[in-house]
Amino acid sequence: MKICILGGTGNMGTGLTVRWALSHDIFIGSRSRERAAEMAERLRRLAVGFYQDQMEGSITGLENADAIKASEVVVVCFPPEATIKAVTDLRGNLKEDQILVSTVVPMRRRDKLFYFNSLGGEKGEKSAAEAIQELVEPTPVVSAFQTVPAAYLNNIDAVLNLDVLLAGDDEVALSIVSRLVRDVANLRPLKVGPLMNSKFIEAITPLLLNAAILNGLHDPSIRIVPWMPTP
Amino acid sequence: MKICILGGTGNMGTGLTVRWALSHDIFIGSRSRERAAEMAERLRRLAVGFYQDQMEGSITGLENADAIKASEVVVVCFPPEATIKAVTDLRGNLKEDQILVSTVVPMRRRDKLFYFNSLGGEKGEKSAAEAIQELVEPTPVVSAFQTVPAAYLNNIDAVLNLDVLLAGDDEVALSIVSRLVRDVANLRPLKVGPLMNSKFIEAITPLLLNAAILNGLHDPSIRIVPWMPTP
Repeated sequence: MKICILGGTGNMGTGLTVRWALSHDIFIGSRSRERAAEMAERLRRLAVGFYQDQMEGSITGLENADAIKASEVVVVCFPPEATIKAVTDLRGNLKEDQILVSTVVPMRRRDKLFYFNSLGGEKGEKSAAEAIQELVEPTPVVSAFQTVPAAYLNNIDAVLNLDVLLAGDDEVALSIVSRLVRDVANLRPLKVGPLMNSKFIEAITPLLLNAAILNGLHDPSIRIVPWMPTP
Repeated sequence: MKICILGGTGNMGTGLTVRWALSHDIFIGSRSRERAAEMAERLRRLAVGFYQDQMEGSITGLENADAIKASEVVVVCFPPEATIKAVTDLRGNLKEDQILVSTVVPMRRRDKLFYFNSLGGEKGEKSAAEAIQELVEPTPVVSAFQTVPAAYLNNIDAVLNLDVLLAGDDEVALSIVSRLVRDVANLRPLKVGPLMNSKFIEAITPLLLNAAILNGLHDPSIRIVPWMPTP
């Protein structure tokens, strides 16, 4: 597929770019075309070095608007505080038959711990994915990847034996994004219901970070485990 | 320790009772002393049969008020819709130096999926643990065990290779409950911050149930997994 990564010069974006470039055409968007092209070249070299002649995808750097227009799926990897303004500025380039993926985790740090911090303001209690959905209607939004640590994704040697929780209201969009999750080896997509559940997916990330801080874990993520009777 | 299980005739309560009876004195509370005594006798036989002469704890059935007074730690396993009334009725029996553990998951089913459903009402958005804390001040509340399926706990043969997320504002109470989590073999306690984070622990359970319904899993629970580089 043709996939646009917005905020692709950040950690999450670079990891997804390299992972997907095995079989997909990735368009890294940036406000600066030069910056996008430099990043694309750096990641392209990394991907080609790793995948060698197995690589069927590509990595191209473009200005944000051009990257969106070139793509079927648009993945938003902005920092939470920049998300609303950036999506508002760029939504005019989106079409109804595209799919937007939100990986955004709205949280803030207070003292030494992290807390979910709605982009909808104090009263709104809204998830980032729902706030984005309101901005980009009628393009469907799927919430995904929040609990996958960027450090895992970016270590191309790392085996990602993890679960990715997905929320969304559009079944076709959910199926396509589930497939994209599976295209990262060993990631398992798990649908958990409509987009209104995204808040509780997004809120798992501050819990994981706090678990790491308070219990001495490193880059924690989640795996949903089944019933395991003893043999 | 002396542990009171309220709502102990339900699934979660029976599982915790049998697991802890290896080394703790359990007081099952019920509105009816007879019903509590019958349940206690049934679980006592099960525990003695499994632990044999290793069993150092005990299981006793009492009326709710007497079970609370006999205990250092009080574990609330009521169904969500019964919780506020039951805790309001019983809180007069609690003392400041006791610890209350909330395992309550406030959720409702709509169509075929589950949704977090605050006990604080539509606007409140409060967790069950916070609602209980307001009722029982100054007794400290610790939130725990929500993501452990009752079916796991009740199958005494099952190896519980799971994580239990803990939230609470009282460090001493958190340490004691962490220890009680460890006293169930293979459960790992992970603190994730103050009681205000309990909402996001409680909200994981409907996500897990939806993941089960939509993806064909059975009795799903969570395990926090660390960074796993390939060798």
